[in-house]
Amino acid sequence: MGEPILFYFDFTSPYSYLASEKIDALAAKFDRKVQWRPVLLGAIFKALGTVSLVRQLSMGDYSLKDFARSARFHGVPYRHPESFPVSSVAPSRAYYWLHGQDCALARSFAHEVFRAYFANGRDIADTAIVLDLATKVGADETALAAGMSDLVIKNRLREETDAAIAKGVFGAPWIIVDGEAFWGTDRLPQIERWLETGGF
Amino acid sequence: MGEPILFYFDFTSPYSYLASEKIDALAAKFDRKVQWRPVLLGAIFKALGTVSLVRQLSMGDYSLKDFARSARFHGVPYRHPESFPVSSVAPSRAYYWLHGQDCALARSFAHEVFRAYFANGRDIADTAIVLDLATKVGADETALAAGMSDLVIKNRLREETDAAIAKGVFGAPWIIVDGEAFWGTDRLPQIERWLETGGF
Repeated sequence: MGEPILFYFDFTSPYSYLASEKIDALAAKFDRKVQWRPVLLGAIFKALGTVSLVRQLSMGDYSLKDFARSARFHGVPYRHPESFPVSSVAPSRAYYWLHGQDCALARSFAHEVFRAYFANGRDIADTAIVLDLATKVGADETALAAGMSDLVIKNRLREETDAAIAKGVFGAPWIIVDGEAFWGTDRLPQIERWLETGGF
Repeated sequence: MGEPILFYFDFTSPYSYLASEKIDALAAKFDRKVQWRPVLLGAIFKALGTVSLVRQLSMGDYSLKDFARSARFHGVPYRHPESFPVSSVAPSRAYYWLHGQDCALARSFAHEVFRAYFANGRDIADTAIVLDLATKVGADETALAAGMSDLVIKNRLREETDAAIAKGVFGAPWIIVDGEAFWGTDRLPQIERWLETGGF
């Protein structure tokens, strides 16, 4: 089995959501695992002095249309959230705490969060909702609630975001295969070719 | 035969070049023609107050890598120009003048310009080189040289750029199929699905 694929994402990034529905199956075709790493895209933009596509006035309408159309193209349910974007701090902290307990549980939780926000209209910035989603996939609500406010977990999220910036990440999803970086769900075909051929 | 596909591009846009190598064959599969429309991306960015991806410091290195990798992915020869970007005014004006004389000739010229800049290291901002490329595909050099400084042609390029902005174009390539807008070479698979299904 080759090196794991690194998957940086933000829970409130629509294209990250689309990639999250595809990346594990794609990796599995080539006998690869994927390491999921939520980061705070807002903090990345702030550090780099850049602006998200959707916040650029001229791009807003197109982006909203493209989110939904790309979701249909990939066969992924999508309903643009009423409140968008929202803070992804709570689900990201929850993810890292759960990941310390049980990697598979953290993965199920991540899917649950993405789908709750992008298909089912739930406010994933709300800690109560995050706890509810985690409980649904089998987490211990009380332990998780305590874990989310643990300093180690808070630091972990900040450190992962800083590490992403240090690796050159400026958007999401950001996928690294054997040191080669790919930005965006629309690079999945290139990632597939890369895995198939070992680089092109 | 359905409505023609509208293909907005800038001669100095790498992804426009990649799309230029694919769009006609894709359209032909669905018995469609393509209307090629060079515009000045710099003027569009200026009008909208946006910045090209490659000029955003954090995105520069990735973009350069992605241009070349995407070209390899699509099987298109690519050598990043030493001087990049350059003005695309001269080849764009030449295109519109040629288009008034002979559409097929204008198309051959457009391919010649893209390949000269992105594969063969020629400076397409230079009028002498533009005339040389046009002559190579069969244009009358003297008539073209006069046509390029004709006020009607100068206005035409400005009007096409303004029309693009009015249609919401904020990047290139920008491809419109039956009123549906697609931004970027990476949307070619969606365009293909759209043509196949009549919308999804």
